[in-house]
Amino acid sequence: MSRDDCIFCKMVSGDIPVAKVYEDDAVFSFLDMGPISDGHTLVIPKQHYEKLHECPPEVLAQVGSRLGKIAKAVSAAMGSDGYNVLCNNGRTAGQLVGHVHFHIIPRNAGDGVFDRWPAYKYKEGQIEEIAGKIRKKL
Amino acid sequence: MSRDDCIFCKMVSGDIPVAKVYEDDAVFSFLDMGPISDGHTLVIPKQHYEKLHECPPEVLAQVGSRLGKIAKAVSAAMGSDGYNVLCNNGRTAGQLVGHVHFHIIPRNAGDGVFDRWPAYKYKEGQIEEIAGKIRKKL
Repeated sequence: MSRDDCIFCKMVSGDIPVAKVYEDDAVFSFLDMGPISDGHTLVIPKQHYEKLHECPPEVLAQVGSRLGKIAKAVSAAMGSDGYNVLCNNGRTAGQLVGHVHFHIIPRNAGDGVFDRWPAYKYKEGQIEEIAGKIRKKL
Repeated sequence: MSRDDCIFCKMVSGDIPVAKVYEDDAVFSFLDMGPISDGHTLVIPKQHYEKLHECPPEVLAQVGSRLGKIAKAVSAAMGSDGYNVLCNNGRTAGQLVGHVHFHIIPRNAGDGVFDRWPAYKYKEGQIEEIAGKIRKKL
Protein backbone atom coordinates (compact mmCIF):
# COMPACT_ATOMS: atom_id res chain seq x y z
CA MET A 1 0.00 0.00 0.00
CA SER A 2 1.39 3.36 -0.99
CA ARG A 3 -0.03 6.80 -1.59
CA ASP A 4 0.57 8.72 -4.80
CA ASP A 5 0.92 12.07 -3.03
CA CYS A 6 3.29 10.85 -0.28
CA ILE A 7 6.92 11.92 -0.51
CA PHE A 8 8.08 9.02 1.69
CA CYS A 9 6.22 6.47 -0.49
CA LYS A 10 8.06 7.97 -3.49
CA MET A 11 11.38 7.52 -1.67
CA VAL A 12 10.52 3.88 -0.95
CA SER A 13 9.62 3.28 -4.61
CA GLY A 14 12.79 5.01 -5.83
CA ASP A 15 10.97 7.88 -7.55
CA ILE A 16 12.67 10.43 -5.30
CA PRO A 17 16.40 10.05 -4.52
CA VAL A 18 17.29 9.52 -0.90
CA ALA A 19 20.36 8.92 1.29
CA LYS A 20 19.33 5.40 2.26
CA VAL A 21 20.88 3.66 5.23
CA TYR A 22 18.75 0.51 5.53
CA GLU A 23 16.03 -1.42 3.71
CA ASP A 24 14.30 -4.76 4.09
CA ASP A 25 10.91 -6.16 3.09
CA ALA A 26 8.96 -4.06 5.57
CA VAL A 27 11.14 -1.19 6.77
CA PHE A 28 13.01 1.67 5.07
CA SER A 29 15.51 4.06 6.65
CA PHE A 30 17.22 7.18 5.32
CA LEU A 31 18.78 10.45 6.41
CA ASP A 32 16.51 13.41 7.14
CA MET A 33 17.37 16.14 4.60
CA GLY A 34 16.65 18.81 7.19
CA PRO A 35 18.51 17.35 10.17
CA ILE A 36 18.53 18.74 13.70
CA SER A 37 21.85 16.95 14.29
CA ASP A 38 24.32 15.29 11.93
CA GLY A 39 23.22 11.72 11.19
CA HIS A 40 19.54 12.46 11.97
CA THR A 41 17.86 9.37 10.50
CA LEU A 42 14.25 8.40 9.77
CA VAL A 43 12.83 4.88 10.04
CA ILE A 44 9.49 4.14 8.37
CA PRO A 45 7.26 1.21 7.47
CA LYS A 46 7.15 0.76 3.70
CA GLN A 47 3.38 0.60 3.83
CA HIS A 48 1.63 3.93 4.05
CA TYR A 49 -0.02 4.80 7.35
CA GLU A 50 -0.36 8.35 8.51
CA LYS A 51 -0.11 7.95 12.27
CA LEU A 52 1.31 5.46 14.73
CA HIS A 53 -2.08 4.38 16.09
CA GLU A 54 -3.31 3.71 12.54
CA CYS A 55 -0.56 1.10 11.95
CA PRO A 56 -1.49 -2.53 12.58
CA PRO A 57 0.41 -3.97 15.59
CA GLU A 58 2.39 -6.31 13.32
CA VAL A 59 3.69 -3.35 11.29
CA LEU A 60 4.72 -1.53 14.46
CA ALA A 61 6.42 -4.73 15.62
CA GLN A 62 8.44 -4.78 12.38
CA VAL A 63 9.47 -1.14 12.70
CA GLY A 64 10.14 -1.48 16.43
CA SER A 65 12.33 -4.54 15.99
CA ARG A 66 14.61 -2.64 13.56
CA LEU A 67 14.91 0.55 15.63
CA GLY A 68 17.56 -0.83 17.95
CA LYS A 69 20.05 -1.92 15.33
CA ILE A 70 19.60 1.22 13.24
CA ALA A 71 19.97 3.46 16.32
CA LYS A 72 23.12 1.57 17.29
CA ALA A 73 24.62 2.05 13.83
CA VAL A 74 23.69 5.76 13.71
CA SER A 75 25.16 6.35 17.16
CA ALA A 76 28.33 4.40 16.36
CA ALA A 77 28.84 6.10 13.00
CA MET A 78 28.39 9.58 14.48
CA GLY A 79 30.29 8.85 17.70
CA SER A 80 27.40 10.31 19.71
CA ASP A 81 26.91 10.10 23.48
CA GLY A 82 23.23 9.21 23.14
CA TYR A 83 20.17 9.58 20.93
CA ASN A 84 16.48 10.38 20.93
CA VAL A 85 13.93 8.26 19.09
CA LEU A 86 10.91 10.40 18.32
CA CYS A 87 7.66 9.84 16.46
CA ASN A 88 5.47 12.94 16.04
CA ASN A 89 1.80 12.31 15.37
CA GLY A 90 -0.40 15.12 14.10
CA ARG A 91 0.54 18.61 12.95
CA THR A 92 0.15 19.88 16.51
CA ALA A 93 2.84 17.42 17.60
CA GLY A 94 5.21 18.52 14.83
CA GLN A 95 4.42 15.88 12.18
CA LEU A 96 5.20 17.44 8.79
CA VAL A 97 4.97 14.39 6.50
CA GLY A 98 1.81 12.28 6.73
CA HIS A 99 3.58 8.91 6.67
CA VAL A 100 4.45 7.58 10.11
CA HIS A 101 8.19 7.95 10.84
CA PHE A 102 10.58 7.55 13.74
CA HIS A 103 13.38 10.10 14.01
CA ILE A 104 16.70 8.86 15.38
CA ILE A 105 18.53 11.98 16.57
CA PRO A 106 22.18 11.58 17.66
CA ARG A 107 22.96 13.67 20.73
CA ASN A 108 26.09 15.02 22.33
CA ALA A 109 26.71 16.86 25.59
CA GLY A 110 25.83 20.53 25.37
CA ASP A 111 24.36 20.37 21.86
CA GLY A 112 21.28 22.33 22.92
CA VAL A 113 18.83 20.05 21.06
CA PHE A 114 15.67 19.11 23.02
CA ASP A 115 16.91 20.55 26.29
CA ARG A 116 13.48 21.79 27.31
CA TRP A 117 11.53 19.39 29.53
CA PRO A 118 8.75 21.38 31.23
CA ALA A 119 7.78 18.78 33.87
CA TYR A 120 5.24 19.58 36.58
CA LYS A 121 3.32 17.70 39.28
CA TYR A 122 -0.29 16.52 39.23
CA LYS A 123 -2.69 17.73 41.92
CA GLU A 124 -3.63 15.16 44.55
CA GLY A 125 -5.84 12.42 43.08
CA GLN A 126 -5.45 13.69 39.52
CA ILE A 127 -3.00 11.02 38.35
CA GLU A 128 -5.35 8.16 39.33
CA GLU A 129 -8.30 9.91 37.71
CA ILE A 130 -6.40 10.29 34.42
CA ALA A 131 -5.09 6.71 34.55
CA GLY A 132 -8.70 5.54 34.96
CA LYS A 133 -9.80 7.54 31.92
CA ILE A 134 -7.03 5.98 29.80
CA ARG A 135 -7.76 2.43 31.02
CA LYS A 136 -11.37 2.87 29.94
CA LYS A 137 -10.21 3.59 26.36
CA LEU A 138 -8.00 0.49 26.22
CA MET B 1 15.30 -10.18 34.27
CA SER B 2 15.00 -7.25 36.62
CA ARG B 3 17.43 -5.01 38.44
CA ASP B 4 17.26 -4.48 42.18
CA ASP B 5 18.16 -0.81 41.94
CA CYS B 6 15.76 0.05 39.12
CA ILE B 7 12.66 2.08 40.03
CA PHE B 8 10.78 0.86 36.93
CA CYS B 9 11.50 -2.79 37.74
CA LYS B 10 10.06 -2.12 41.23
CA MET B 11 6.94 -0.66 39.63
CA VAL B 12 6.59 -3.76 37.43
CA SER B 13 6.96 -6.05 40.45
CA GLY B 14 4.47 -4.00 42.50
CA ASP B 15 7.00 -2.87 45.10
CA ILE B 16 6.43 0.80 44.20
CA PRO B 17 2.86 2.03 43.61
CA VAL B 18 2.11 3.32 40.15
CA ALA B 19 -0.82 4.72 38.13
CA LYS B 20 -0.95 1.77 35.76
CA VAL B 21 -2.78 2.01 32.46
CA TYR B 22 -1.80 -1.28 30.76
CA GLU B 23 -0.03 -4.55 31.46
CA ASP B 24 0.50 -7.82 29.63
CA ASP B 25 3.14 -10.56 29.75
CA ALA B 26 5.88 -8.43 28.17
CA VAL B 27 4.87 -4.76 28.39
CA PHE B 28 3.95 -2.38 31.22
CA SER B 29 2.51 1.12 30.93
CA PHE B 30 1.85 3.82 33.53
CA LEU B 31 1.55 7.57 33.95
CA ASP B 32 4.72 9.62 34.34
CA MET B 33 4.64 11.19 37.81
CA GLY B 34 6.40 14.29 36.48
CA PRO B 35 4.38 14.86 33.30
CA ILE B 36 5.07 17.48 30.66
CA SER B 37 1.40 17.30 29.61
CA ASP B 38 -1.66 15.75 31.29
CA GLY B 39 -1.86 12.05 30.45
CA HIS B 40 1.91 11.76 29.75
CA THR B 41 2.34 7.98 29.73
CA LEU B 42 5.35 5.66 29.76
CA VAL B 43 5.54 2.29 27.98
CA ILE B 44 8.31 -0.13 28.97
CA PRO B 45 9.37 -3.73 28.44
CA LYS B 46 9.03 -5.67 31.70
CA GLN B 47 12.52 -7.03 31.23
CA HIS B 48 15.31 -4.69 32.24
CA TYR B 49 17.40 -3.15 29.46
CA GLU B 50 18.99 0.23 29.83
CA LYS B 51 18.89 1.49 26.25
CA LEU B 52 16.91 0.83 23.10
CA HIS B 53 19.83 -0.68 21.19
CA GLU B 54 20.50 -3.09 24.05
CA CYS B 55 17.02 -4.63 23.74
CA PRO B 56 16.72 -7.78 21.63
CA PRO B 57 14.67 -7.17 18.44
CA GLU B 58 11.86 -9.42 19.71
CA VAL B 59 11.48 -7.29 22.86
CA LEU B 60 11.35 -4.11 20.76
CA ALA B 61 8.76 -5.79 18.55
CA GLN B 62 6.62 -6.48 21.62
CA VAL B 63 6.89 -2.91 22.88
CA GLY B 64 6.40 -1.46 19.39
CA SER B 65 3.29 -3.52 18.71
CA ARG B 66 1.60 -2.12 21.86
CA LEU B 67 2.56 1.53 21.27
CA GLY B 68 -0.25 2.19 18.80
CA LYS B 69 -3.14 1.04 20.92
CA ILE B 70 -1.81 2.71 24.06
CA ALA B 71 -1.18 5.99 22.20
CA LYS B 72 -4.69 5.82 20.76
CA ALA B 73 -6.21 5.34 24.23
CA VAL B 74 -4.11 8.14 25.76
CA SER B 75 -5.04 10.51 22.96
CA ALA B 76 -8.75 9.61 23.12
CA ALA B 77 -8.89 9.87 26.92
CA MET B 78 -7.20 13.26 26.95
CA GLY B 79 -9.00 14.59 23.85
CA SER B 80 -5.64 15.66 22.40
CA ASP B 81 -4.97 16.84 18.84
CA GLY B 82 -1.82 14.73 18.52
CA TYR B 83 1.00 13.13 20.48
CA ASN B 84 4.74 12.59 20.53
CA VAL B 85 6.30 9.19 21.16
CA LEU B 86 9.81 9.70 22.51
CA CYS B 87 12.53 7.38 23.75
CA ASN B 88 15.59 9.12 25.21
CA ASN B 89 18.78 7.09 25.31
CA GLY B 90 21.69 8.22 27.45
CA ARG B 91 21.90 11.05 29.96
CA THR B 92 22.93 13.44 27.20
CA ALA B 93 19.66 12.69 25.41
CA GLY B 94 17.60 13.31 28.56
CA GLN B 95 17.28 9.72 29.86
CA LEU B 96 16.83 9.95 33.64
CA VAL B 97 15.85 6.34 34.49
CA GLY B 98 18.16 3.59 33.20
CA HIS B 99 15.36 1.27 32.00
CA VAL B 100 14.32 1.82 28.38
CA HIS B 101 11.00 3.68 28.16
CA PHE B 102 8.84 5.31 25.51
CA HIS B 103 7.06 8.53 26.50
CA ILE B 104 3.63 9.13 24.98
CA ILE B 105 3.03 12.88 25.28
CA PRO B 106 -0.44 14.18 24.40
CA ARG B 107 -0.30 17.46 22.50
CA ASN B 108 -2.67 20.31 21.81
CA ALA B 109 -2.39 23.40 19.61
CA GLY B 110 -0.35 26.16 21.23
CA ASP B 111 0.71 24.10 24.26
CA GLY B 112 4.33 25.17 23.86
CA VAL B 113 5.74 21.67 24.49
CA PHE B 114 8.54 20.63 22.10
CA ASP B 115 8.10 23.57 19.77
CA ARG B 116 11.80 23.86 19.08
CA TRP B 117 13.00 22.07 15.95
CA PRO B 118 16.42 23.51 14.99
CA ALA B 119 16.64 22.05 11.47
CA TYR B 120 19.48 22.96 9.14
CA LYS B 121 20.89 21.83 5.79
CA TYR B 122 23.88 19.61 5.09
CA LYS B 123 26.72 20.91 2.97
CA GLU B 124 26.95 19.46 -0.54
CA GLY B 125 28.00 15.80 -0.48
CA GLN B 126 27.80 15.57 3.31
CA ILE B 127 24.52 13.64 3.47
CA GLU B 128 25.86 10.82 1.26
CA GLU B 129 29.10 10.70 3.23
CA ILE B 130 27.19 10.32 6.51
CA ALA B 131 24.76 7.75 5.06
CA GLY B 132 27.78 5.71 3.95
CA LYS B 133 29.27 5.83 7.45
CA ILE B 134 26.01 4.57 8.96
CA ARG B 135 25.61 1.80 6.37
CA LYS B 136 29.06 0.53 7.27
CA LYS B 137 27.94 0.08 10.88
CA LEU B 138 24.81 -1.89 9.94
